[in-house]
Amino acid sequence: MKQRSISNAVIERLPRYYSYVTMLERAKVERISSKTLGESLGITPSQIRQDLSCFGAFGQQGYGYSVRDLRRELGHILGVDRQYSAVIIGTGNLGLALIQHFQFEYSGLRLLASFDKREQLIGRTISGVTVLHSRELESFAQKHPFQLGILTVPEDSAVTMANRLVKLKVQGIWNFTNAELGITDPDIIVENVHLADSLLTLSYRMAQREQNP
Amino acid sequence: MKQRSISNAVIERLPRYYSYVTMLERAKVERISSKTLGESLGITPSQIRQDLSCFGAFGQQGYGYSVRDLRRELGHILGVDRQYSAVIIGTGNLGLALIQHFQFEYSGLRLLASFDKREQLIGRTISGVTVLHSRELESFAQKHPFQLGILTVPEDSAVTMANRLVKLKVQGIWNFTNAELGITDPDIIVENVHLADSLLTLSYRMAQREQNP
Repeated sequence: MKQRSISNAVIERLPRYYSYVTMLERAKVERISSKTLGESLGITPSQIRQDLSCFGAFGQQGYGYSVRDLRRELGHILGVDRQYSAVIIGTGNLGLALIQHFQFEYSGLRLLASFDKREQLIGRTISGVTVLHSRELESFAQKHPFQLGILTVPEDSAVTMANRLVKLKVQGIWNFTNAELGITDPDIIVENVHLADSLLTLSYRMAQREQNP
Repeated sequence: MKQRSISNAVIERLPRYYSYVTMLERAKVERISSKTLGESLGITPSQIRQDLSCFGAFGQQGYGYSVRDLRRELGHILGVDRQYSAVIIGTGNLGLALIQHFQFEYSGLRLLASFDKREQLIGRTISGVTVLHSRELESFAQKHPFQLGILTVPEDSAVTMANRLVKLKVQGIWNFTNAELGITDPDIIVENVHLADSLLTLSYRMAQREQNP
C-alpha cells in the first residue's frame, strides 16, 4: 500500500532516475551521491533524497546510494522485474529502429516478435526478432502470450491493429502513431509517443529564447 | 509581454491543442466546441476555455472556436510560423522513419538535408531529402543556414555530433539518442526524446493496474 502514497510528480521522475542508474551500472559505477545525481539530472539533491526516501531507499551520509540497490528498487517499483513480453506491430523504419537499437531488456521487456503485412519482410530475422505476417497475430498470441503491443504501423492501420490488440487482452499499448486510438477499456494502459508535441515544445522554447534573449 | 504570464502547465498542453486542431483542419472541420475538444483530449471544457483565453482566443457561446483561427493563434505562440530549418544527423532507420513519415511541415519546419557517414547512403534522395556526408555538415551550414539539428546517430557519436552543431550555433537540438549531451550553452535548447522513460511509465502503470485492479 506504501506505493499508493507516491505523488504523480515523483512517479514522473522515477524513469529518469532508473535510466540514469542503469547507465551508471553499465559503466560499472558502484555508488552515487544525491549531489552528483542531482547535477546530472537537473534536480536538487534535497528533492532527490526526498523522492528516493518515499519508497525506502536511503543513501548513507558521505557514501551516497548503492547504484545496484537503487536500480533494483526503482526497477521493482517501475514494474521492470515483471518481465512483460511485447510484440511490435509494423516493421517499417521505426519498427526496425526499435528492434535494432532500443534496449528493451533495460526496461524489463522481452520482445517476442514483429509483425508486418508486406510479404517481402515475412520470415526475416532482425537482431534475433522474426518478422511474422500480421494475419498470424492472433494465432501467435495463443502460443506466446504477450502483455504489450508496440504500435508502429502507418496511421491508417492504427485503429484496426489497436482493436485487434484489445481483443487479445493486452495490458498496454505503446502507441507511436499519431492516431487517437479511442480505447476506453480501463484495463488497457495506452502510452502515446507524441513526437510532434516534443518538437512543438522545442520550437516554442526556441521562439521564446529569440524573443527574450 | 503577454506570453510571459502563461504558466508552464498551459504551455505543456499547447502542443496537444495544436496537434489536435491541425488534425481537424486536415479533416476539413471548421468549428470545434470546448466540450468536444475536452472529450477528445481528456481535459475539462472549463480548463480548455481558461487555457485558450490566456492568449486571447475566445470561443463563441454555442458556436465554439474557429479551427483555422485557433490553429493560427496556437501556431504563432508555438513558433510554428517562424519556419525554422532543420537537418537530420544520422540516416539510420530512425532518421529514415522521420524523413518518410514525420510531418515536419505541420510543426512549421523545413527539413533541408540529412547526414550520414556511410558511403552507400550518400547522394540518395528520400522523400525529397538528400543524404549528404557528415563531413560536409559545416560547408552545408554556410550555404544553407539551419536552426535545428535532429540527432539520430548511434549513442557513441552523439556528443561529437552535438558539439559540431553547437559550434554551428544552432538554436535547438532534438535529441533522439540516449546520450546526455552535456550542452551548457543557455542559447541552445535541447529537447530529449527519452523513449525509455515513456516505456517505463507505461510498464509502471501496467504493474500498478495489476496490483490495484
